Amino acid sequence: MEIKTSSKFFAEFIGTFGLVLFGCGAAAIAGGTTLAGTAGLGLLGISIAFGLSVVVFAYAIGGVSGCHITPAVTVGMLVAGKISLKDTGVYIVAQVLGAIAGVFVLSQILTGQLGGFTAGEWAFGSNGWGKGYQNEYNVGAAFLTEAVLTTLFLFVILGTTSKVGNGTMAGLAIGFTLLLIHLVAIPVTGTSVNPARSLGPAIFAGGQALSQVWLFIAAPIVGAVVGSLAWKLVYSDSEKL
Amino acid sequence: MEIKTSSKFFAEFIGTFGLVLFGCGAAAIAGGTTLAGTAGLGLLGISIAFGLSVVVFAYAIGGVSGCHITPAVTVGMLVAGKISLKDTGVYIVAQVLGAIAGVFVLSQILTGQLGGFTAGEWAFGSNGWGKGYQNEYNVGAAFLTEAVLTTLFLFVILGTTSKVGNGTMAGLAIGFTLLLIHLVAIPVTGTSVNPARSLGPAIFAGGQALSQVWLFIAAPIVGAVVGSLAWKLVYSDSEKL
Amino acid sequence: MEIKTSSKFFAEFIGTFGLVLFGCGAAAIAGGTTLAGTAGLGLLGISIAFGLSVVVFAYAIGGVSGCHITPAVTVGMLVAGKISLKDTGVYIVAQVLGAIAGVFVLSQILTGQLGGFTAGEWAFGSNGWGKGYQNEYNVGAAFLTEAVLTTLFLFVILGTTSKVGNGTMAGLAIGFTLLLIHLVAIPVTGTSVNPARSLGPAIFAGGQALSQVWLFIAAPIVGAVVGSLAWKLVYSDSEKL
Amino acid sequence: MEIKTSSKFFAEFIGTFGLVLFGCGAAAIAGGTTLAGTAGLGLLGISIAFGLSVVVFAYAIGGVSGCHITPAVTVGMLVAGKISLKDTGVYIVAQVLGAIAGVFVLSQILTGQLGGFTAGEWAFGSNGWGKGYQNEYNVGAAFLTEAVLTTLFLFVILGTTSKVGNGTMAGLAIGFTLLLIHLVAIPVTGTSVNPARSLGPAIFAGGQALSQVWLFIAAPIVGAVVGSLAWKLVYSDSEKL
Repeated sequence: MEIKTSSKFFAEFIGTFGLVLFGCGAAAIAGGTTLAGTAGLGLLGISIAFGLSVVVFAYAIGGVSGCHITPAVTVGMLVAGKISLKDTGVYIVAQVLGAIAGVFVLSQILTGQLGGFTAGEWAFGSNGWGKGYQNEYNVGAAFLTEAVLTTLFLFVILGTTSKVGNGTMAGLAIGFTLLLIHLVAIPVTGTSVNPARSLGPAIFAGGQALSQVWLFIAAPIVGAVVGSLAWKLVYSDSEKL
Repeated sequence: MEIKTSSKFFAEFIGTFGLVLFGCGAAAIAGGTTLAGTAGLGLLGISIAFGLSVVVFAYAIGGVSGCHITPAVTVGMLVAGKISLKDTGVYIVAQVLGAIAGVFVLSQILTGQLGGFTAGEWAFGSNGWGKGYQNEYNVGAAFLTEAVLTTLFLFVILGTTSKVGNGTMAGLAIGFTLLLIHLVAIPVTGTSVNPARSLGPAIFAGGQALSQVWLFIAAPIVGAVVGSLAWKLVYSDSEKL
Repeated sequence: MEIKTSSKFFAEFIGTFGLVLFGCGAAAIAGGTTLAGTAGLGLLGISIAFGLSVVVFAYAIGGVSGCHITPAVTVGMLVAGKISLKDTGVYIVAQVLGAIAGVFVLSQILTGQLGGFTAGEWAFGSNGWGKGYQNEYNVGAAFLTEAVLTTLFLFVILGTTSKVGNGTMAGLAIGFTLLLIHLVAIPVTGTSVNPARSLGPAIFAGGQALSQVWLFIAAPIVGAVVGSLAWKLVYSDSEKL
Repeated sequence: MEIKTSSKFFAEFIGTFGLVLFGCGAAAIAGGTTLAGTAGLGLLGISIAFGLSVVVFAYAIGGVSGCHITPAVTVGMLVAGKISLKDTGVYIVAQVLGAIAGVFVLSQILTGQLGGFTAGEWAFGSNGWGKGYQNEYNVGAAFLTEAVLTTLFLFVILGTTSKVGNGTMAGLAIGFTLLLIHLVAIPVTGTSVNPARSLGPAIFAGGQALSQVWLFIAAPIVGAVVGSLAWKLVYSDSEKL
């Protein structure tokens, strides 16, 4: 049974919408300690929000679109020869629109705070680096972190969905990988490995979030291509992907 | 083999009882830092309590009743044509009674504190919004949050239990979705997406919890209907649900 | 293929040994903030330690002994007619010896602290209640908490391992249930639902931990019998357990 | 289909690289509270980083190399007769090189901090014990902890991958076991049970981390041999491994 392109488009749209609303929403709404004194999510809770979002959508839309929900994965799949060029475009447009819609809903919730809401620099869970951003790493560390971690992300995705992988558990393993990536990288870049997830908040936050967004497009794409090529070189022969 | 209505009733009763006792119990008993200095559950731990409750009952009673344990899911399933009108009523009565029983047991435990127990406003894990509730969001933000997140909840439920989903992992993905919903929404509304879960504490807490409970009936129902209709529109044709 | 009684004995011994070493060990060694300033496990981490212990041993020894690792489950299984009276005795002896061995190893580690180790009241993760124990609940709240939560534990165990359950996910759901039980009950009793897990630390800690241990034998057994009978009454007819 | 040795080598290299980058990276970059005031990972988050790394690589490379990613498991498998002597050497070389590469990337990220990076004693997530290391335990406690926990690790690995285990869930159970091991042992030794994971940081940190690294080679190997022999003695007869 052929799945319609419109179904795939909607799946990637809603999946990226959910990833951004859950992940950036958790960071922007519940990251810090609450006024009522209950401990906020901290880096662990925010990491879990992004990671489990991939888990749940992998099982909800995996059978429709494969649940890429980041252009990095879609480009990696193109390099691996697992998606057409046309679908690549459809997926990326859906992901970017979904991310924008997710941040729009998030912004509407945040402006409902009784005390008023002022969008600070890097609001809405924006990615960034440098002076004033998290634990202040330079652009080289930011690029290296995003590229290497996206390479590992693609490696796990291609491994778990290959013939020697386990179809039932692949979605869990892939989501847990995004969780792990966040456990390491939030202090460095806020963690992207996802150009759409970075573009959404950057458009609404403007300023440095927008001027730095190029890195969160370039580095994940570089990492995804490297990861996909490495996988093909090492495993395509013996395992017949 | 036909499953008896009384079995379904008891399954939904015990499942909602457990969800409320685990979820609201975790919030009311173990949410904050303990007197002994051990860090309390915080927003992450409370979110895990609600989310994993759905996971465990999905696998314990899913084969009996489908494990709705919230009227929002039951109404969504009615819209999707997956449950009869008669069973809809049976399920919702069981869920409300189970939630009330759960809060009753919780209240009996809390009154066993040696220092005495005074039920504050919004006690027993009550949902709410506005001045004095968590991080103080207005009614519009509360309604939007509850409705949009319930829409995503129904979308994941219908996706994971459809033909393109994975029956083994559906319960995990659905429970993780409720976990994600809590990661975002506790500072806004305490997180309901479940009229029964809100009604139980509101009856025991009274006051604002009771006067605000209408939103936690209306918004999740609206979200569930939207989520269910959206799913049918996009996927009923190509996937033959 | 018949599994030898000695294999079952060793499985229950090592499983309970591991549960106590992981669970009580996490509480006693890593529960609070470290000297180096890294945040300790808190109530969430300790709950995860106990819960995941059941998950891992369910998959490691479930095929050998069923992975009861608490006399409460073994008694519940006896009531449900799923284990012989002779095996019941073998299992409980193995569980108690395993718990004692686990606390012995834990005590050997703790006495290796350079600053010296003084076993305070309720050391080694002992269960208890009342003045000075956690958030100070009375004996009635302690008994109710232990009994009701053990009832839910048995309900999930019998549900997930019944014909309408999912054999692959049962171990995960059962372990997550113990995790949930800890999320609620640590401030009340430290959470037992397991006479062997309580007896081990009580023997080494002495004092109130030992004089209060009767409750952590009686309440879980009562809860297990209720949970098992309730399951049989409601589901034995329609589902032919 | 025979899997090529070079594929196994690369799998163990990338798996150990990922374990070290995720695990030691989480500890070194995100362990403590951030400058921005968001709570750091704490002992729980660091434990999750190591544990889930094993989960994800178990499903990504398990079908290629078995995903040992620690020489302790490889030696245990040799004792259990499940790997050849030649492959044992190949695996251990790959693991050590992967760990070194992981710490190298981590060190490159850390030196990108704007405020400058000074590698303190026990930097890069080094293992250790004694005065000034975590909660200050002596060498006996350190050895006992590493040996006993590696024994449990091997027991779970051999149990979950035996005929009475569950192939789908084995990777999850094994990773959760490493998570549990970290929940207990970080204050004592930082948690190794993995000579390669300890050697990598020790080479870059030097000093005491390097002079103490012998324990993290010896104790895990002792524990692995004991765990493997115990398993064979108890279960090889009745279950025909």
